[in-house]
Amino acid sequence: MSGVGFFGGLFEFKGYRQPVLVSSVDGVGTKLKIAAALARHDTIGIDLVNHCVNDILTCGAEPLFFLDYIAMGKLVPEQVGAIAQGLAQACREAGCALIGGETAEMPGLYAGGDYDLVGFIIGVVEKEKIIMGRTIAVGDTIIGLPSSGLHTNGYSLIRKLFGETKSALNTHYPELGRTLGEELLQPHRCYYRQLMPLLPVIKGLAHITGGGLVGNLPRVLPQAMAARLRSQQWTIPPIFQLIQQRGNVDQDEMYRVFNMGIGMVVVCSADNAGQVTKVLPEAKVIGEVVKQVGEARVVFE
Amino acid sequence: MSGVGFFGGLFEFKGYRQPVLVSSVDGVGTKLKIAAALARHDTIGIDLVNHCVNDILTCGAEPLFFLDYIAMGKLVPEQVGAIAQGLAQACREAGCALIGGETAEMPGLYAGGDYDLVGFIIGVVEKEKIIMGRTIAVGDTIIGLPSSGLHTNGYSLIRKLFGETKSALNTHYPELGRTLGEELLQPHRCYYRQLMPLLPVIKGLAHITGGGLVGNLPRVLPQAMAARLRSQQWTIPPIFQLIQQRGNVDQDEMYRVFNMGIGMVVVCSADNAGQVTKVLPEAKVIGEVVKQVGEARVVFE
Repeated sequence: MSGVGFFGGLFEFKGYRQPVLVSSVDGVGTKLKIAAALARHDTIGIDLVNHCVNDILTCGAEPLFFLDYIAMGKLVPEQVGAIAQGLAQACREAGCALIGGETAEMPGLYAGGDYDLVGFIIGVVEKEKIIMGRTIAVGDTIIGLPSSGLHTNGYSLIRKLFGETKSALNTHYPELGRTLGEELLQPHRCYYRQLMPLLPVIKGLAHITGGGLVGNLPRVLPQAMAARLRSQQWTIPPIFQLIQQRGNVDQDEMYRVFNMGIGMVVVCSADNAGQVTKVLPEAKVIGEVVKQVGEARVVFE
Repeated sequence: MSGVGFFGGLFEFKGYRQPVLVSSVDGVGTKLKIAAALARHDTIGIDLVNHCVNDILTCGAEPLFFLDYIAMGKLVPEQVGAIAQGLAQACREAGCALIGGETAEMPGLYAGGDYDLVGFIIGVVEKEKIIMGRTIAVGDTIIGLPSSGLHTNGYSLIRKLFGETKSALNTHYPELGRTLGEELLQPHRCYYRQLMPLLPVIKGLAHITGGGLVGNLPRVLPQAMAARLRSQQWTIPPIFQLIQQRGNVDQDEMYRVFNMGIGMVVVCSADNAGQVTKVLPEAKVIGEVVKQVGEARVVFE
């Protein structure tokens, strides 16, 4: 590993009464392999930052600062530069300081143009404002915010179905209106700016990542409650239909692997649902909280 | 990438007047390849935590919490368990909370038994107690604390010189009193517990990582000052002699790549040097701060 000493930063911390620090670490998974195959490295950093910002937003936290780790077999300065540009852009947009990072050269661990990219984020929330889902009740409204595409999940399955050759990725699909590669590299959307003003009326937030709606939504629901979703309430983007057809993937698996067009879920009282959908015109009421019957905690009707 | 949602933690933060958060991110470099070759995964987590704790200690920070990222081609639960055991042990010893982590499965990115391991640490220091080296003056004493071996630097060179076959790593060297592999996997030493009580008299701290004494020591020295070191004041451990002989590596390069037996450097006033070496019997006065003459900022005599 190359590099000298201490890679991090100092962050003066003030203005909070009972601050709780909220942290998260994440990668972007094998979406990296698509970026590498297309030699397009300026958006993957956006994915990473936005994924991390969304993760801590689910507790009601505002992002404070971010650190990155980039590891390559042999450092390619232009590539590191393009990645860093994406990181910096997304941090700027979320009002988050890009405070430090580590760039590691590890010959023999990463082959060819492969690399790994990891992000660490620290945010803060006042203790009394932490969103934990504890006040969620039967009858509450479930609102979905559209994703910008696959975000950062399901790429191993996609690579298996479509391959990762340049020709596969450069194939134009009329239903997508662009090439597969362009669709797959669409950056993960950040929900922070939109949702921050609404946090006081939000009871629960679920970031729809690996595991999909079925895996992520139950974690914000109190015991003995389930989510009843009406999937006809939102449009499933064409990329998911394309994947399903190509791989003959059954509906259940699609909902367990992919976000299916919903990147973030908001739970609020029925009384406040109108306010949320008014502020966020793209948001759709997609279901409600019900009493759990049987084992399923997410029921589609 | 497998896994569901939000991997991080909440940390309630209190008891500081003017807190400054100090963060760092790091890996353990290709020391990982030695661990993988010997299928010994229970110490590499210790390396990672101790490296990170030492890094933020150089600002005077106490560690608060730590997050890890483990990426493998295919997750091997026993291996992840052994790595996590090392992380937990070192966090416990440093009084640092192991608050979360991400375990990523990335088929096609990591070959065979390869994996990467990244750590992220957050610590805190009162603003008025930050150690920046600003008060360092000509005549101050430079004290070295022994390393436990190579710590986490220089492994790419070592792998080139000795290879990484089991038979090379299992070779017993009389001068080491053990096998090469045992020597190379010796965990990175943590200096936090020892140095914490002494911080009020410490003016500067340099963690000797990649770049060695020559690369790391100048960064704590004010402009126009240099370090004059007397290398006969400490014993260079046999592993460094073995490497030097095997690779016919010149002395300058040895000091730029390896810690050469000094893992942490303390700078304090000459008046306080006696107190430091009394509390830390292993510590050795290894030089002093002098006016810079010419370009070199570290001069050996």
